[in-house]
Amino acid sequence: MLKRYFPILEWLPVYDRQTLSSDLIAALIVTLMVIPQALAYALLAGLPAIVGLYASILPLFAYAVFGTSRTLAIGPMALVSLMTGAALIEVAAPGSTVYLEAAITLAFLTGVILTLMGLFRLGFFANFLSHPVVSGLLSASGVLIAASQLAGLAGLDASGFTLITQLSNLFSHLDGIHWPTLAIGLVSVTLLQLFRRSRPRLKSWGMNARYADFLVKLGPLFVVALTTAICWAANLPAFGVAVVGEVPSHLPPLGVPSSDLGVWRDLLVPALLIGIVGFIESVALAQMLAARRRQRISPDQELIGLGVSNIASAVSSGLPVVGSLSRTVVNFDAGAQTPAAGAFAAIGVAFVTLYLTPLIRFLPIATLAAIIIVSALTLIDIKTLKRTWRYSYGDAAAMLATIALTLVQGVEAGVIAGVGLSVGLYLYRTSRPHSALVGRVPGTEHFRNIQRHQVESSERVALLRIDESLYFANARYLEDTVYGLVAEHPEVDHMVLICSAVNLIDASALESLEAINLRLKDSQVTLHLAEVKGPVMDRLKHSDFLQHLTGQVFLSTYAAWSGLRHGHSPSSGSRDQGRTPAKKDAG
Amino acid sequence: MLKRYFPILEWLPVYDRQTLSSDLIAALIVTLMVIPQALAYALLAGLPAIVGLYASILPLFAYAVFGTSRTLAIGPMALVSLMTGAALIEVAAPGSTVYLEAAITLAFLTGVILTLMGLFRLGFFANFLSHPVVSGLLSASGVLIAASQLAGLAGLDASGFTLITQLSNLFSHLDGIHWPTLAIGLVSVTLLQLFRRSRPRLKSWGMNARYADFLVKLGPLFVVALTTAICWAANLPAFGVAVVGEVPSHLPPLGVPSSDLGVWRDLLVPALLIGIVGFIESVALAQMLAARRRQRISPDQELIGLGVSNIASAVSSGLPVVGSLSRTVVNFDAGAQTPAAGAFAAIGVAFVTLYLTPLIRFLPIATLAAIIIVSALTLIDIKTLKRTWRYSYGDAAAMLATIALTLVQGVEAGVIAGVGLSVGLYLYRTSRPHSALVGRVPGTEHFRNIQRHQVESSERVALLRIDESLYFANARYLEDTVYGLVAEHPEVDHMVLICSAVNLIDASALESLEAINLRLKDSQVTLHLAEVKGPVMDRLKHSDFLQHLTGQVFLSTYAAWSGLRHGHSPSSGSRDQGRTPAKKDAG
Repeated sequence: MLKRYFPILEWLPVYDRQTLSSDLIAALIVTLMVIPQALAYALLAGLPAIVGLYASILPLFAYAVFGTSRTLAIGPMALVSLMTGAALIEVAAPGSTVYLEAAITLAFLTGVILTLMGLFRLGFFANFLSHPVVSGLLSASGVLIAASQLAGLAGLDASGFTLITQLSNLFSHLDGIHWPTLAIGLVSVTLLQLFRRSRPRLKSWGMNARYADFLVKLGPLFVVALTTAICWAANLPAFGVAVVGEVPSHLPPLGVPSSDLGVWRDLLVPALLIGIVGFIESVALAQMLAARRRQRISPDQELIGLGVSNIASAVSSGLPVVGSLSRTVVNFDAGAQTPAAGAFAAIGVAFVTLYLTPLIRFLPIATLAAIIIVSALTLIDIKTLKRTWRYSYGDAAAMLATIALTLVQGVEAGVIAGVGLSVGLYLYRTSRPHSALVGRVPGTEHFRNIQRHQVESSERVALLRIDESLYFANARYLEDTVYGLVAEHPEVDHMVLICSAVNLIDASALESLEAINLRLKDSQVTLHLAEVKGPVMDRLKHSDFLQHLTGQVFLSTYAAWSGLRHGHSPSSGSRDQGRTPAKKDAG
Repeated sequence: MLKRYFPILEWLPVYDRQTLSSDLIAALIVTLMVIPQALAYALLAGLPAIVGLYASILPLFAYAVFGTSRTLAIGPMALVSLMTGAALIEVAAPGSTVYLEAAITLAFLTGVILTLMGLFRLGFFANFLSHPVVSGLLSASGVLIAASQLAGLAGLDASGFTLITQLSNLFSHLDGIHWPTLAIGLVSVTLLQLFRRSRPRLKSWGMNARYADFLVKLGPLFVVALTTAICWAANLPAFGVAVVGEVPSHLPPLGVPSSDLGVWRDLLVPALLIGIVGFIESVALAQMLAARRRQRISPDQELIGLGVSNIASAVSSGLPVVGSLSRTVVNFDAGAQTPAAGAFAAIGVAFVTLYLTPLIRFLPIATLAAIIIVSALTLIDIKTLKRTWRYSYGDAAAMLATIALTLVQGVEAGVIAGVGLSVGLYLYRTSRPHSALVGRVPGTEHFRNIQRHQVESSERVALLRIDESLYFANARYLEDTVYGLVAEHPEVDHMVLICSAVNLIDASALESLEAINLRLKDSQVTLHLAEVKGPVMDRLKHSDFLQHLTGQVFLSTYAAWSGLRHGHSPSSGSRDQGRTPAKKDAG
């Protein structure tokens, strides 16, 4: 019980020296990686860069205690920072104290919501965003994130959280381009792209694959060091190049949330959406990596782990945090064995915050923008869109709609539309169920669609296979199908509904079955069921439908076929060959 | 084509004398019934009683031209009047001109929305309210409607559209009870109940069943006549008994909708909900009666019929109208053959409006309240709740929640919650699909759950039947199930997923299947599919899953069983006995 809520108790008691050394190495690499990312993502949310470092210390300790993934690297993340910025701009002006307080409030609310969801075991909610919709959301936010940083890259003062506001802001400020800043930005982008693509070359030079990966991952740190050095050497701030500037060298101060209840209320929905998006992204990532090492994570406990991490971020003046895709993969590859690696990385970040902030004073904002742009572009995933389109137009349409809405209306609208579209598409698909008249494959006990296969069928016995669970959305459609069939084939005496694919009959569908039974009785047609699944049959026994059924319930289609084919009248001659005897005689 | 949009062309050309006489008799009965109801329901919506008559003339002509049901009786209806009142009170003060204009605006908006839905063929939307939820909605609104009239019955001036406001208003005004009014109200309720229950007695006195029914239905008219006569004879208005009073004797004036755009905007959502609720109720009723006479109605054209009727109501200063349950049943029983019966009834109402309004001047409001209360109580349906509870706790819970929310928050909240709960319940049910390891029923080609039946099974071949379509909400659950099974049974070499109940594999589930395939490959387990349905197989061929599948696709479970049982290693010896050859060798 205690272990369920404190997963640290699973691994801490068996922590040994070898695990320690693996974790320490991974922590070192992640620390080097997290610094430019944390600074950049804080900026993306419209916050001072240092807030990103604040959010990368305490939350990592919290996750080490409460998280179930061994390798998830917690901290600021691009998509979530974009959503954070979009939410904060609605309640405060960037740069103001109110804005900082709102960020703390948002992190706190996100944390509380996630923790409560975890305590109420609502982890399954994550399943309601379909993969194509999540993929569309990530692609569209990749575009949004990259576009949002174009202004920073060119030294402009323009921002926005939908593509239209971003681009119109950008174009209206185009005359203010600061050329030295743009030069630094473009050089940074170019260098970052070169690093990204250098892996095959490094390996072809005979470098060990693992070292090659390591070097590639440190690309952003190298670019940060290089451009900071240039800025310092050439004293570029004097020429108007924006830099991070003086930052206080102390541990995160205690977070003070907003004292305005209106702000809390306005941030409630954004906090919920940030929590859900962050949770889905983190859990998908954690599950993927846990599967590779045959470990298991618990989605409900992950909610608590992420929730407490966000509360920890709020307490230490940070912004909402989730599992970071890029750092988690690096952490995993570098051999992290336990969440202690995250705690060690937190110590690393704390050290930097305390002693090395003077080093980032000359770090150009344009370099941070370049880091965000290059990593955001990797989110754009055309391949999945193409593959989905080939597989199913419906899924692809939901994906395209999510992309369009995210670009035009922002990430929140995209998430809501994505869930709505996924659910709507599924309901639409199941509301007009496929059904098929089947016949016997000669010489066997198998029955197949008479339109697809060469099969035996009887004029008087209609064997109708229903290919869907029966529930309110398709109950009326079922009635129409059966009535239409009987009207088309007046020679039919027996209607057998084959329920091998019926996994559920809800109360609405039960009423429709009762109506069908009555109406067929009026038309002198006997209604039978076949291959009713155990759980469905159990449920039907709780109603009086079986008592009123004019026909029988057969164990198999074959039993129905052989029992009814040679009957002489609709109300006689039918034998029940199945093991489930009908409650009443036919007729 | 023309007939589709003008169903009148179906029956008018073949209209004959015999149909005319049937329709005329039905029209006479319905006219006598509609008058007290129309007056009462207008009052329920907070409108002058005469507006109810206005809404019972032109809409009936409109429906005769555009409706597909031969017997649906259009006009004001209790539930819809309650929703109308709840919507209007938000935008105007009862009794004001603005309130009247808002009612006209609401009818117009409802009409336009329904007509548009019909033109876009959105009739299937009606399917998204499950039967238990509709039943719960009707029961709860029966309580609400009855409670809303208690004040009128006692001569109090209190109203409200949720149970709490109604009861608290009532109790705070309790000292103002007007005893003569209450006496009239209670006498009316008693008489109405006596009429309702007199049918068996009348028949036991030897009266023809049809005449007995007719007499019973005229009960309200009799009570109206009696109490009006008493009020007139004793000059009760002078003692403070509220009556309908002077009403203008002319045909409905031309409706003037609100000139305030804000009112239009505020009434948009109520109009949508009134339209949907009215449509569902009307179509369910029309379908039930059409089925009895082997006629068919078209839900899409019904939307247009109801839509144009509402526009007609707005044009003639009325309120939103739908099919009335009680009058429709009477119309049907009285032998109405075509919508012309409705048109004749409209002429009857017009005649009353022109020449007989002086007669209703002394009609007590308490009598109208009594009529509403008695008919509202019949909406309360405990039997369905009990039956649903016995059949399925989930459906019953959705029903109870709808009832509770309707009582506490009003009908609109109830409708929205009802749809949400129906959909949520279905998603929840399908998100944790039932699955079963199956074995062979000895000597047959049938396979059944090894936990429910005595069957043969093989240690090395796991036959897993999935009892649900695979889609985003259960994709991860499927992965967990398969991985759990393999972890529990390390001796398994072959995993066969039996897809007889899988009617859909969406893009998310396809990704999960790909992940399962890869992961099982790592564990030296071969993945096979069996009994994949035609439409699902067609779709899978649009992906590259079948190329990557480590095992085969078998036509039947038996083919998989006999092919795999005697194999010597996971990667050899399997034969495909099905007609769907696998794309690749196993392994």
